[in-house]
Formats: sequence, structure tokens, C-alpha cells
Amino acid sequence: MPFATAILGASGYAGQETLDRVLAHPELRLVALGSDSLAGHGASVLDPRLNGNVPSFTSNDAALAAGANVIFCCLDHERAALLDAPAGAVVVDLSGAHRLARSSLYAEWYGFEHPRPQALPEWSYAVPELFPPTGRLIANPGCYATAVLLALAPLAGVVEQSGVVVDAKSGVSGAGKSLRPSSHAASVLENVSPYKVGSHQHAPEIEQALGFPVCFVPHLLPVRRGLIATCYVQTDADVRELLEAAYVTSPAVTLLPQGVAPELSRVQGTDGAELGVFTDRATGTRIVVCAIDNLGKGAAGQAVQNANLALGLPETAGLRLAGVTV
Amino acid sequence: MPFATAILGASGYAGQETLDRVLAHPELRLVALGSDSLAGHGASVLDPRLNGNVPSFTSNDAALAAGANVIFCCLDHERAALLDAPAGAVVVDLSGAHRLARSSLYAEWYGFEHPRPQALPEWSYAVPELFPPTGRLIANPGCYATAVLLALAPLAGVVEQSGVVVDAKSGVSGAGKSLRPSSHAASVLENVSPYKVGSHQHAPEIEQALGFPVCFVPHLLPVRRGLIATCYVQTDADVRELLEAAYVTSPAVTLLPQGVAPELSRVQGTDGAELGVFTDRATGTRIVVCAIDNLGKGAAGQAVQNANLALGLPETAGLRLAGVTV
Amino acid sequence: MPFATAILGASGYAGQETLDRVLAHPELRLVALGSDSLAGHGASVLDPRLNGNVPSFTSNDAALAAGANVIFCCLDHERAALLDAPAGAVVVDLSGAHRLARSSLYAEWYGFEHPRPQALPEWSYAVPELFPPTGRLIANPGCYATAVLLALAPLAGVVEQSGVVVDAKSGVSGAGKSLRPSSHAASVLENVSPYKVGSHQHAPEIEQALGFPVCFVPHLLPVRRGLIATCYVQTDADVRELLEAAYVTSPAVTLLPQGVAPELSRVQGTDGAELGVFTDRATGTRIVVCAIDNLGKGAAGQAVQNANLALGLPETAGLRLAGVTV
Amino acid sequence: MPFATAILGASGYAGQETLDRVLAHPELRLVALGSDSLAGHGASVLDPRLNGNVPSFTSNDAALAAGANVIFCCLDHERAALLDAPAGAVVVDLSGAHRLARSSLYAEWYGFEHPRPQALPEWSYAVPELFPPTGRLIANPGCYATAVLLALAPLAGVVEQSGVVVDAKSGVSGAGKSLRPSSHAASVLENVSPYKVGSHQHAPEIEQALGFPVCFVPHLLPVRRGLIATCYVQTDADVRELLEAAYVTSPAVTLLPQGVAPELSRVQGTDGAELGVFTDRATGTRIVVCAIDNLGKGAAGQAVQNANLALGLPETAGLRLAGVTV
Repeated sequence: MPFATAILGASGYAGQETLDRVLAHPELRLVALGSDSLAGHGASVLDPRLNGNVPSFTSNDAALAAGANVIFCCLDHERAALLDAPAGAVVVDLSGAHRLARSSLYAEWYGFEHPRPQALPEWSYAVPELFPPTGRLIANPGCYATAVLLALAPLAGVVEQSGVVVDAKSGVSGAGKSLRPSSHAASVLENVSPYKVGSHQHAPEIEQALGFPVCFVPHLLPVRRGLIATCYVQTDADVRELLEAAYVTSPAVTLLPQGVAPELSRVQGTDGAELGVFTDRATGTRIVVCAIDNLGKGAAGQAVQNANLALGLPETAGLRLAGVTV
Repeated sequence: MPFATAILGASGYAGQETLDRVLAHPELRLVALGSDSLAGHGASVLDPRLNGNVPSFTSNDAALAAGANVIFCCLDHERAALLDAPAGAVVVDLSGAHRLARSSLYAEWYGFEHPRPQALPEWSYAVPELFPPTGRLIANPGCYATAVLLALAPLAGVVEQSGVVVDAKSGVSGAGKSLRPSSHAASVLENVSPYKVGSHQHAPEIEQALGFPVCFVPHLLPVRRGLIATCYVQTDADVRELLEAAYVTSPAVTLLPQGVAPELSRVQGTDGAELGVFTDRATGTRIVVCAIDNLGKGAAGQAVQNANLALGLPETAGLRLAGVTV
Repeated sequence: MPFATAILGASGYAGQETLDRVLAHPELRLVALGSDSLAGHGASVLDPRLNGNVPSFTSNDAALAAGANVIFCCLDHERAALLDAPAGAVVVDLSGAHRLARSSLYAEWYGFEHPRPQALPEWSYAVPELFPPTGRLIANPGCYATAVLLALAPLAGVVEQSGVVVDAKSGVSGAGKSLRPSSHAASVLENVSPYKVGSHQHAPEIEQALGFPVCFVPHLLPVRRGLIATCYVQTDADVRELLEAAYVTSPAVTLLPQGVAPELSRVQGTDGAELGVFTDRATGTRIVVCAIDNLGKGAAGQAVQNANLALGLPETAGLRLAGVTV
Repeated sequence: MPFATAILGASGYAGQETLDRVLAHPELRLVALGSDSLAGHGASVLDPRLNGNVPSFTSNDAALAAGANVIFCCLDHERAALLDAPAGAVVVDLSGAHRLARSSLYAEWYGFEHPRPQALPEWSYAVPELFPPTGRLIANPGCYATAVLLALAPLAGVVEQSGVVVDAKSGVSGAGKSLRPSSHAASVLENVSPYKVGSHQHAPEIEQALGFPVCFVPHLLPVRRGLIATCYVQTDADVRELLEAAYVTSPAVTLLPQGVAPELSRVQGTDGAELGVFTDRATGTRIVVCAIDNLGKGAAGQAVQNANLALGLPETAGLRLAGVTV
């Protein structure tokens, strides 16, 4: 018998992608679709492909109270921070509201005082391949953080901790559906620019997970979806061997052969990740590159993967793992 | 009286952009248009906008022998290395064939033995704002090298020399007009990938100019033109002040105000450069970002700027400096 | 027990997409992967996601002789025209070599004399929703023709036959994987242009299927995949009703509600089609718009759909029907 | 002595492009820069390339009252309709507010009652090559209308008036700078879709200028700027000859040779137009394709060209006519 499932904030990009995976999931059954802006409308208002088998939109409060066994929270950070998780339900929060253990970091990096700091210890920050969920309340990592941690967490003990640089590039869906001048297509097309340089809110969750800070600079790309993190480290360790050991049994993470670089196009639309390892000839710097779909492994796909683990389901149930399309 | 000008290799991207600037230049008069593949055809075969006032294509040898006072060499590296510059002419080589002082580096980074190593000392490697041409034979820097040197050369004496990272991203015209699978639009669109990781041939000219090696990784972007280099350095010096001092009188280089990041869109189609300076909050790493048009300041624009200096013309004659288009 | 399946010409775009669907198909088992250029290599040379479970590449002749029950022919037109289909096998030809009943049209539109004109009557030109395959040899329609016929075939009897205009736009993968200046990303990005204006080889198969010629002009778009055909007709009939009747039971074709226009983004990566119907206010012209993925419903998806019908399998087995991703 | 010039609505795309041309114009001197949203700010708030030589922003009312000899009005349609043009000044209205002679059409196509219908007869609708301005109040045509009229106006007397189809495609800057879901880059990238099908507000100005209605369908392209109109007509006349005669002396309009199609990439960033003529092999339909930059010849460039004519200046003063960049 499938688990009754609710989605809060279903009208945003992460929400819609979660919906996509829940509808295709053999063990989840959608019972509530929350969106305060679309409450009262049929699901097809979001996308004409959604038909009568999908519940209509309700308010987020109503969706939360619908008695679901599994709740995906795709609300914005401040709204999600107020979430009062129903007893017994598995809750995956795709926002940043429960990722940082030290509540004071919210004021510093997210720009708001966390309203329920006492709740933070109940949540586990979970990348399935690195640190699986330890309870029923799951803080789903940020898209950038996911890529960076897949690349660097297995190396954390062996790299020189000062001087790690992460130069990341993301498609525009990573910035969310809300309308901003920087997301206007006439600003994005034929353009690339760094943004939130040295001050992006995914930096502290990377530091928390690695145990040391990295210099993290994101860039906006003229692509719809996909994210690539190019990570620069100094180490004498056998980087390839460490990554191979870390992911040899992971269905969603592929370590590419020597000389092959990750490409956005191979991970777009999937819930998998690609890793490539290189050495700079002139300086010996090691370069680990990770590509994911920011909405897949970087959001909805990882959320479902985490929920699967918490529910005791097969890890990849309902995931979109790569075909070999062009 | 304008200087008679010849272009060799005029059918490639750098050649066509050089042609564009020569035609608009008040002091240059095109007398020969060389292209072995197009020899014998009228100029309009390259572009329907070219009319009868432009000389027809000849062989490159014929163009070289046309008695021009100024020669822009847009041949590929190996062909350019064979160039026997006519006495007295100002020659700007846009290829890499005369950039490296140590001839042995050609086998290592370009994959061919330099055929005329004894000629290398006659050429000056010239970025007008940093090290102007010192003679009539000018090695025009690579596009990536131009951006990196504009960002880092004024800081070379004050940064920690080990651990400098340059993560660069370029539009696809940077890879040239020849047909390769990696330049096929179906591979480029909605894709981003690092290439020649740690082994790109612009690395040694950067090292030669800075005096120390940097870790340099280029990426291919789904944009037509434009290049951005994000440079990571450790230093206690006042980076902004040093850059301001370096470029305060430079018409082609703009240091952006605090908090403003360079954007490809503002430099595309121009011969200028934009620089932005940032500090990473978590690690204190300094980040200098430089954006140029790879075919403008990164190739044809800088070639004309160098020629202007060698000819005693105003530095910006014939250059495309930015308007304020959208 | 699954049907043994071979793919000829598996290294091109249509071949790779067919491979993608065959690997995911519950009733097909890949036994031979033909490519003359890749023969002898493992499958991973095509795509690093292909692992040891996939047969290595052989020559196309060897793949044809491998005893498969189902053969997908993704060779170019001239090579495919020579195909000697093995007795008993279901063969789906994705090229144009068997689409036109009148062999003389090949010289006119494809530029070669058909080498086996006597074989043409054995092949059935099949769009599953309009005219399903009638035998085991199936000529899979062109991508443009598929979209145009989905839009217009149900209206063929009721529109004014002179003056039908089809303005079509396709992503660059539609032009195939071979390297041409027109497919170079620096030519495609930020560009749109009509090509083969009034002389594209899909025009005669559209005329053959409709019973009258249309004015057909394709344009190249700066997108990776997807195709949209905007069709203009004069008629007093109830266009929406006719299309609704035609597709009400078709799982792969969606007629959008009043006022909703097809979008490439909703059909990319899928084997479905979207149709929208409009009326021009000023002239009363009826406008039917069809969007498909040129490599999905326009090639590999329809090929598998046709094979399913010929094999007596469920029509949508192995197809990629739309989720609701962003 | 240059003409004092004011720009109203200078913060939008058309306003910024007009500003770009005014700053480069040898005979215009900017005296006022109006924008109600930016009033009080320095010009660099719009673009960091604008320096202290450019006037600060004032309110639009103040800019209108600044005593300029030339006023470019880049306000939205409803605001522009209220414009009370100062006596003696040349005013070019880039909005649609003064294009339609019949005031009732505003309610029908623009969705508002025209507030000053009595003023409409004072304005001349002007495409310089076809119908130059006849007074000092100039209604600058819409971007789509410009392309369609350049293609069709010289043929208006010789084509079958019923059944003309115009399928147009525009880059996203054509939709303006305001933030709409349809302009979000994640909706635009890898997407193409028709919009305002059969009901776009440029249709009536095309009908007014041609003397008969056409079926006009615009599509949104994933490009920053540029517009292409593919026009389908039935006629026995010599289309090429008629277009040649119409534009032989026009510096901004290029009729391409037989077989060459217009390309967005060659007109982007310019104030020129390209025309190509074709015949459909199967139906004899004549196809005229026009490409312009929607912000250049389709807006700011044509506005300056019209102002030049009204002021008795050389027609191309300050225009950006094509170089031959890649």
C-alpha cells in the first residue's frame, strides 16, 4: 500500500519537479497539493499535462493537515522555517530552513532570524551517498552544496584545508520561479556572470559538512537547468581511488573514466551525478568536477531519494536515472 | 595617408573580426585579403555585407607579398610559425606562434616543434595596458591570457604565488571556425563542460608573463562570443587600489564599482574589458573577475590596438569601444 | 520472451535515441549495434553511460545479419535505400529512403536515383495515429512531416487545398550529427534563419500523405531539440472538433485547451505531441500548431511506436511519455 | 550646433537603445533623461558604462519640460497616449499610441480607450524607406510591423490580398523589460512558442499601411535580440525586381542575392534590415523574409532615422550600420 504524500509549495520549480517524481513513484500516492497562490485551482493550471487524477491545489496549511505519511516541503526558506512537522510523518524540507545546525547562521547568511531554533537538532542534513538520513525529519541539501559535497566530502580528510576553491555554474532554474531582473531572459541569454560572490547561502552548509570553509563563487549560465561545480584542491592523496571507493555502489553517482569531463547535457533531466578528476600540469592542483541537474539530484530527485531511505523503500524508486539520450 | 594593410587567414573568426575593424579604421587601408581556401573569390563569399570596395581574396603568400605596411596574421599556429615577416612592416600575429620565448614550450603545449626558434626573440608579447609592443613584430596574446593578465598582472608582486586558481569560461567562437564535434550546436546548447583541463596552451604564456604558474581551467559556454575569467588569489594587498592604479588612464579597461560584477553582455562586440573585485566572506580569498569579448579585446581588437601603438596612431583608433546597448 | 533487436547506424542522433528507447523497452532485447565508423569499439565510446551490458559495435552489415526480429535502420538516405530487409523481420527505416511511393521523386528531392525502386511498394509509411503500419516493413516519417501531418491530416478533406502554408522551426539536432558550417554553434546561437526554403525533402511526403502540396518552409532554431510547425489553412469546418475526434484515444497526442499554445519545452525529451488551434482575428485564417521532439515523436519514439504496432505490443511500450518536469 | 534632445522612459530597452544612439550622434546633445522610476539617480544606475557626462534621471514630466528640440518618447502605450507634445519640437513616439489613425482600434487591440483621439491626425506613421515622416510628430512603427512592411509594402499592389500569411519570430527583448513569467529565462531557453496568436497589436498597423489585413502570428525565440518575419504571398509579379527598385538607394536595407537567406546574427546590434526572396517549388508561393534587430531598425534605430529626416540631417547620422563581425 503506497504512502500518502503531500507537497507544500508545489507551484515552484522544486515543487513541480517533486510532483513529477511523486506521480511516477510506485510507492507514493499524492493526496495533497499545496500552494497558497494556486489554492482552489485544478492541477492543470500549473501544467496542461496534469489531468483529473491529480488532486486540486489547496492552501499549504490544508496540505500539511491532510494526514500524509510523507511531506515534501518546497516552501521558501522563511516559510519553511515555521513548519510544524506532523507527528510520525516523514518530512523532507527542500528549503534551506533546517540545514544549518547553528541557528545564528540564518541571520548571517539567509537574512532572517530563525523562528524555531530549538527544532533544528531534530533534522538530519542528508546526502544519501555520504550521510544518509538518520530520522524522519530530513533537511535536503542545496543544489550547489550537493555537487560540492559529492566532489569533496570523500577527500575532506586528505586535502589542504586552506585554499580550496569552488567555482560553480548553474542554469537559471536554480534561481527559482520568482521574477527578478537577473532572471529575465534578455539578461541571461548570451551572458554569464558571477553572483553573490563569496556570500552565497550554500557556503555555510558546505563548511558545516566538510569541517572547513571553502571559497565558493557561483555563476549564472544561459541554460535552463543543470549545475557544474569545478573544485580545486591541493593534496597528495589518490583522489580517483578515494572517489571510486566512495561511490562504487551508488546507483546515482558516476565517476567518469580518466580524461572524460562531466557535461551538463548528460545529467539534465536526471537525478544522477557525474564526477571527473583531473590534474593541472603546471601546478599539480587536483581538480574535481561534479555535474548534476539542479532540480534533480540538486533538489527533487535527492528529496525523493532521501524519502525512500527514510521509508525503507529501494533507494532509487521513482528516480529519473539517466538514459542515453543525445 | 593611411597605412596599406594586409590580412592573412582572413576567412576565420579572428580574420573576419580584424577585417571588420580595418574597414572601419580611419588610418588603415585594406590592400590584400589572404585566404588559401577562398583565394580567387570576391570578398562577399565570406559575408554578403562585403561589397566591391573590398579586395578579392588572394592566397596568403600573395597577401604577404602585397607590400603592406601593416600585416595582421590570423593563420593557425603552425602556419604562422613559418611566417617570414617582410622588412619594415608592422606585423601582428594573432596566433600563438610567437608568444612563447622558450621554443621548447611549443612541443610541450602546442604539439609541434617550432620551425623558426631563432626568430622568437624578435617578437614582443604585448598587452597594451600592461606591456606595450617594443618593436614592429608583435605577438598578440591569447584570449584567455589577455583576460587573466588584465586581472592578475598588476597583482603579481603581492599575491601568494602558489595556489592561484583561474577558472575561465568562453563562448564557442573562441574555439575557432573549424568543424569539431565539440563545436556542434547540439553539443554546445544547454551544456557546459571544462575542456583541456590543466593543459590548455594559454597556460604557459600566462606563466611567462606573471613569472609563476597558475592553475588554469577553461570551460565552454553556450554563448556565441565573450569570455570571463574568475581568478582566485591570496593576498593582503589592496587589490582594488592596485587595479585602479594600473588602469586609470586606460580607455579600454573599466574597473567596476564595488559590488558590481562583470557581465559578458556588456563586453560582447566591443574591444574593451571589465574588471570586478570581490572578497570571499568565509576564507578571505580575493576574487578578480575579468570579462572581455574573445574576438575583440581577446583577438582582433587588441591586435588593432597593438598596431596603433606600433604605428604611432591614437591607441583606440578603429576600436569598438562600448556603447550602452541592452 | 523479448524480441531480438538490432540498430543500424547507431552512432547518429536518431540511432542513439533509438538505442535509448530499446534499452528501456520491456519487450525488446538489443542483440546488435551497427556502426561502420565505430565497429569494434565498446558501446561506451558513444556515451560513457553505456556499460558492459550493451553489445559492442559491429559493422552495419554484421548487425543486419545478426538474426534480429526487429531492425531499426538509422542509416543515411542513400545507404538505407540499399537495404535488403531480412525475411520475417520487422524493419523500421528512420531515413527517407522508403517514404515516397514514386521513385522518381528521389532524384528530384533527395538528389540520388533510388537504387531499388521495385522495393518501394513493400513499405508502409506510418504515423500510428493516422495511418498505422500495414506490414512488417515500415517507413518512419520525417520529423517535420510527422508534425505537419498530425496537424493537417485530419483536416485534409475540409480545407481549401491551395494556399496552405506551413512555417516550421526545428532545433539543431534535426540536422543530424555530421559537421556542417550551419550546425557550428557560433552560427546557431543567437541566430534564426530559414533554410532549404521551398525545397526541403519532407515536402513530397507531406504532399503524398495529404493528397495536395503545401508551401513548407523550415527554420533552424538555437535549441538543442524540439520542433514546432505552425500551419495556416482556410476552412469553415470545426477544426477543434475534427482534431479532438482524431486524437481522443491517442496516448501520445495532446490537443491543448482553447488559448493554450504548444511549447517546445513540454515535448522535449518525450515521444508525445502537442496540438493547439487558433483563429486569426483579422482574416479568419485557422492556425494549427504542432510541437514534437524531433528525435522523439519525430524519429526514435515514433519508430518504436510503429514497431510496437507491427509486433502486436502495447502501442506505448518503451516510449517516453511526458512527465511534468519544468 | 547640435539639437537639444530628451528621452522619456529611458530606463526600458527601447529607451536605453535610444540613449545609446543619441550619445553617439554627432548632431544630438542629450539634455534630459526621463524615467519616473529612476528619477533622482545618476545615469550609471542604469548601466555602469554611463559616466558623469550624461545627465541624471529626472521625472518624465521634467524631461518633457526641459526645452528639448527633439524628444524620443519610450513610454508605455497608455502613458504615451497622454503626451502633450511641446510646440516646435520634433517628437518621435516609439510606443504604439499614435500609430493607428482610427482611434477605436485602440480599445480593440491595445485594451484602452485612446484619451486624446483628436491628436491622432497630427502624427505621421513613418518608415523612412517607404513613407517618410511628413511633420514633426512621428509615430515610430512597431518592430514586427517594420519588418513586415519592408517585406510587403512594395508588393502591396501586386499580391493576392486574401491569404497573405506572416509568420514572425522575435528575440525576448521585444517583449520589454518588465518581468513576466513568459520572459523568465527558464521559460524562454530551449523553448519556442507562438503567442498572441492572431491578435497581436501590430496587426492593425500592418493592415492600415498595406490597405488589407494579413494573418500575423508572432513567436518568441530563445535569443536576446533580433526579429525575422517570413511572409507568404501569391503573385505573378517579379518580386525581386520590385524590392530592388524599392531599396536600391536605401543605406539601411539590403536585398540579399538569390539563394541567400537573412540571418538574425547579421542584423543584431545594427539599425539595418536584410531581405531575402524565395519561391516554393511545390506551390509557387513567393516567400519574402525580412530580418531586423527589434531594438535597432525595429525601435531606436528607426526612431533616430526618422528624427534625422524631420531635422534635415543625413538619414544615417548616429545609426549603427552593419560591420562584418562574426
